Amino acid sequence: MDIAVIGLGLIGGSLLQALAARGHRLVGYDADPATRATARTAAARSTSGTRWQVVGSVREAVAASELTVLAVPLPALPGVLDELAGRSYTGLVTDVTSVKGVVRDLVADRLRPAHARLAGYVGGHPMAGREISGFGAADPGLFAGAAWVLCLEPPTQLGEWLDIAALVTSLGARVVPMTADDHDRAVAAVSHVPHLVATALAAAVADDAPALTLGAGSFRDGTRVAATRADLVAAMCGGNAGAVADALDVVLASLAEARAALDAPDPIGALRPWFAAGNAVRAAWPPTAGSSIELPARADTLLRLGQVGGWITEVAPDRHTVTAVRPS
Amino acid sequence: MDIAVIGLGLIGGSLLQALAARGHRLVGYDADPATRATARTAAARSTSGTRWQVVGSVREAVAASELTVLAVPLPALPGVLDELAGRSYTGLVTDVTSVKGVVRDLVADRLRPAHARLAGYVGGHPMAGREISGFGAADPGLFAGAAWVLCLEPPTQLGEWLDIAALVTSLGARVVPMTADDHDRAVAAVSHVPHLVATALAAAVADDAPALTLGAGSFRDGTRVAATRADLVAAMCGGNAGAVADALDVVLASLAEARAALDAPDPIGALRPWFAAGNAVRAAWPPTAGSSIELPARADTLLRLGQVGGWITEVAPDRHTVTAVRPS
Repeated sequence: MDIAVIGLGLIGGSLLQALAARGHRLVGYDADPATRATARTAAARSTSGTRWQVVGSVREAVAASELTVLAVPLPALPGVLDELAGRSYTGLVTDVTSVKGVVRDLVADRLRPAHARLAGYVGGHPMAGREISGFGAADPGLFAGAAWVLCLEPPTQLGEWLDIAALVTSLGARVVPMTADDHDRAVAAVSHVPHLVATALAAAVADDAPALTLGAGSFRDGTRVAATRADLVAAMCGGNAGAVADALDVVLASLAEARAALDAPDPIGALRPWFAAGNAVRAAWPPTAGSSIELPARADTLLRLGQVGGWITEVAPDRHTVTAVRPS
Repeated sequence: MDIAVIGLGLIGGSLLQALAARGHRLVGYDADPATRATARTAAARSTSGTRWQVVGSVREAVAASELTVLAVPLPALPGVLDELAGRSYTGLVTDVTSVKGVVRDLVADRLRPAHARLAGYVGGHPMAGREISGFGAADPGLFAGAAWVLCLEPPTQLGEWLDIAALVTSLGARVVPMTADDHDRAVAAVSHVPHLVATALAAAVADDAPALTLGAGSFRDGTRVAATRADLVAAMCGGNAGAVADALDVVLASLAEARAALDAPDPIGALRPWFAAGNAVRAAWPPTAGSSIELPARADTLLRLGQVGGWITEVAPDRHTVTAVRPS
């Protein structure tokens, strides 16, 4: 398959390498000339025999592509979509942006105004970030075992969705079918709010030299993602502001309970059931995979699978069925 | 040296093994017969030739000990102190409890009521927890490189403090001299509040199957310590309730700023400086070690070292000087 990847940061760069390793013909582009040079050098030095091409414009990147993957940060997305629309690009488009409602609306407005809404577009989000970024951190094995949401909206073309799902499962990722709104609500809770609290924990000890010296495992892990580039994480959380605000309110309500317990006459006794509740959730995580089942490749069946926390590990070549797993 | 370790959980068990490996004569006791059996079997099976004795009572454990290490959870501490007082135990006592003001007061009230306050006691806290507990998780290498607070209060006997500091540095730990109150304030921020927010993050997605399936690195690390046993962490946070409440308020104020930014007309722009501030703190952590210096072993000099985030790596055999490191 001829595939273009626009944006060669951690996710785009990893995807470029992973798809090239699966035998596809890859062309990459990044707005930053230094990133393009790094990606070109890496291709030339690749010892696995895997190759990819790096070009100097979106136009060249998509000239022959059947599929274009948009892997640029959210603020850069409108510009790239305008460029594709300006070229009347007709191939399939997917993206890896961490918010999906906003991108779905951008695509509908800018890329496909004259077409059936969302035809040719399938929104995606691999849950495989790291606190380091850039092509230098890229890793073709990044997606093995990772959950990868593919958005299935009422106007999504199921055949296109299944094509992308087949490609994504070929990288070892677990495809989770969800609507964009359900995705945005879920990632607000498990990704965006954790970035907010990590940052608040770190900021709380600014200039507190003894506290910084005493910081050990709980501080290290609790603040790890606070090392993520501020502009990336601001775009991620701010681009999903409504869902993040709701999810943050749930956490703040829980912390308010803990705060009240600290003021209780017996804080140890008051905190114990509060800690036990969160402990039970974490102890049961990650969910255990049940046995594989075969499901008909129908939109309602797939969305129900996603709603119970299930995922797809394979798409049948005839696209009539999928192999699915539900949490046990 | 003849050393007794009372409480053979993760920290006590690790310490028993680490001190025995340094050639000391160790006697251990735990209130749980199963833990005692495990510790006895481990001693018999030790391939390194390192041995320790496990006895069936506090009385037997401390019968010949020059130093007793109290490694029981906070709620069990008063009972053990009463037992030592009942035997008129005259050896040196230290502890590894994660709160220090409460323990200092317990010791003054129960163990040393007739003595000069705090003579014979040096409060300690190795910053080397893990989310798993019990003797089975013990590791004699747990303390290498770890910060280990030793409390230096006005009534602390400096000679005793230096003896414990020499022992602790011999395990590869970095001794941080602090008052109990400064310790409690610092660990509230870098350890206790991180446990609270980890638990709140986990509790927020109870019964949310798709969110639990999408949880990846930021959820895994942000909630890791929520897997800590609820009774242990309730005792830790509730035993330091005042300082934890203050530190939690700082984090809640920071999250309130983020919450307001999410409601701003441009949430991405409003969040960017907020994320940048926390990002700078995390990017500069852990503090880099400056060069080693020799300092006089005086209480005021040592406390000043702790206040700037410094630590001790060695105590001179004559106890007149220490080798210290300040963050660069």
